[in-house]
Amino acid sequence: MDVEMEIKALVFDVFGTVVDWRDTIIKEGMALSRTRRVHIDWARFANAWRAGYQPTLDRVRRGELPWTNLDGLHRMILDQLLNDFKITTLTEADIDHLNRVWHRLTPWPDVIEGLTRLRTRYVVATLSNGNMALLVNMAKQAGLPWDCILSAELVQRYKPDPEVYLMAARFLGLRPQQVMMVAAHVSDLQAAQAVGLRTAYIPRPLEYGPGYATETLPEGAFDVVEADFNDLAERLGVPYPMPA
Amino acid sequence: MDVEMEIKALVFDVFGTVVDWRDTIIKEGMALSRTRRVHIDWARFANAWRAGYQPTLDRVRRGELPWTNLDGLHRMILDQLLNDFKITTLTEADIDHLNRVWHRLTPWPDVIEGLTRLRTRYVVATLSNGNMALLVNMAKQAGLPWDCILSAELVQRYKPDPEVYLMAARFLGLRPQQVMMVAAHVSDLQAAQAVGLRTAYIPRPLEYGPGYATETLPEGAFDVVEADFNDLAERLGVPYPMPA
Repeated sequence: MDVEMEIKALVFDVFGTVVDWRDTIIKEGMALSRTRRVHIDWARFANAWRAGYQPTLDRVRRGELPWTNLDGLHRMILDQLLNDFKITTLTEADIDHLNRVWHRLTPWPDVIEGLTRLRTRYVVATLSNGNMALLVNMAKQAGLPWDCILSAELVQRYKPDPEVYLMAARFLGLRPQQVMMVAAHVSDLQAAQAVGLRTAYIPRPLEYGPGYATETLPEGAFDVVEADFNDLAERLGVPYPMPA
Repeated sequence: MDVEMEIKALVFDVFGTVVDWRDTIIKEGMALSRTRRVHIDWARFANAWRAGYQPTLDRVRRGELPWTNLDGLHRMILDQLLNDFKITTLTEADIDHLNRVWHRLTPWPDVIEGLTRLRTRYVVATLSNGNMALLVNMAKQAGLPWDCILSAELVQRYKPDPEVYLMAARFLGLRPQQVMMVAAHVSDLQAAQAVGLRTAYIPRPLEYGPGYATETLPEGAFDVVEADFNDLAERLGVPYPMPA
């Protein structure tokens, strides 16, 4: 398969695929334990916050909620969690800061090197349900070398709605088959594939912490399956950049 | 004036402000003179192409043309110019390639250093009538270190329509007064100012070639007036980045 010959751009799912949301939420939570006397299980809190994500997006996708960007949806879920976990010592400024922890997530260890390498041959862009400001702030803080920030916010539809994937091809001036979606989640890739994008599955077995199983894949489900972004660069035949 | 205290993002006009469209069009045109026997005055051609820009944009802004991205408008103007200049030896592939010269424009000498410095403190983004693919390709080829590509295409309105400037603030999660528009054109800055953005005027006296006068400014018209991007960084108090 000469998939690498036609591809011009790689677009990346972000939460779980590029960054480790769980680790950063736990670390910032533990800081709140010290400074704000919030004594809860932050690993459980992190997973509960993430678990609220898909059902809340689905409410927007079904039209039960008006368009709300991801900062807004994260805040709705957070307000519920503060109640569920009986967290009462945070000020409004604390809560707003905690809500923006999603702007401060840190990448998996292979990401910067892999993206830097992939970028020498392809346009590399986000294609995330995160809002533009969240993705811009995250990239700046983490040093993610994107060529372009693309967000579901640009079309006011959330993945896996087809408009989001087609928007990426349109704004990059490419046909869908010239764009490869890179993600750690099967449903994201299936939706990209359904509208003609190429697909790369990069499992992230630690996304939900130790002890969770990654999704099992039907044989040949996606164009490429690799363990991390460096292996993806290798698979696509991108040489290491020359040292400066 | 402590304008630098509140600003979080700088958004940049691109054609004329960041890149020298005239120089690249002349150079690529002279190559066509050699390979395709097109013997015309390419400086006059470049200025004629650029002169067709504002009237064509205005036709979209008035609703006389349906939304068309800038690659499409450049091609409409180019087709007319090929006729006016009696250029008959180009193939369709040649014409398509020439139309994308706008994706290959090169920056003014101060731009990379100035942006790299400004980026250490501010989000730096395009805010251009160029379409997304054009701006992404240009940034990649020229090494422009944008945090984010923002284009009129995202709202299907052209500057100086107010929606374009307000879109930038909205997607960056900022209030208009936290965003500074940087441009070499008075009308662009006036429109940005009218919706609350801060403004920096950077005259580019060579935009149209030697011998053209830059626009005269009313006293105190804009927040900042500086000669180039390095002087802008100096004016905003951004230190030189530490060597790596």
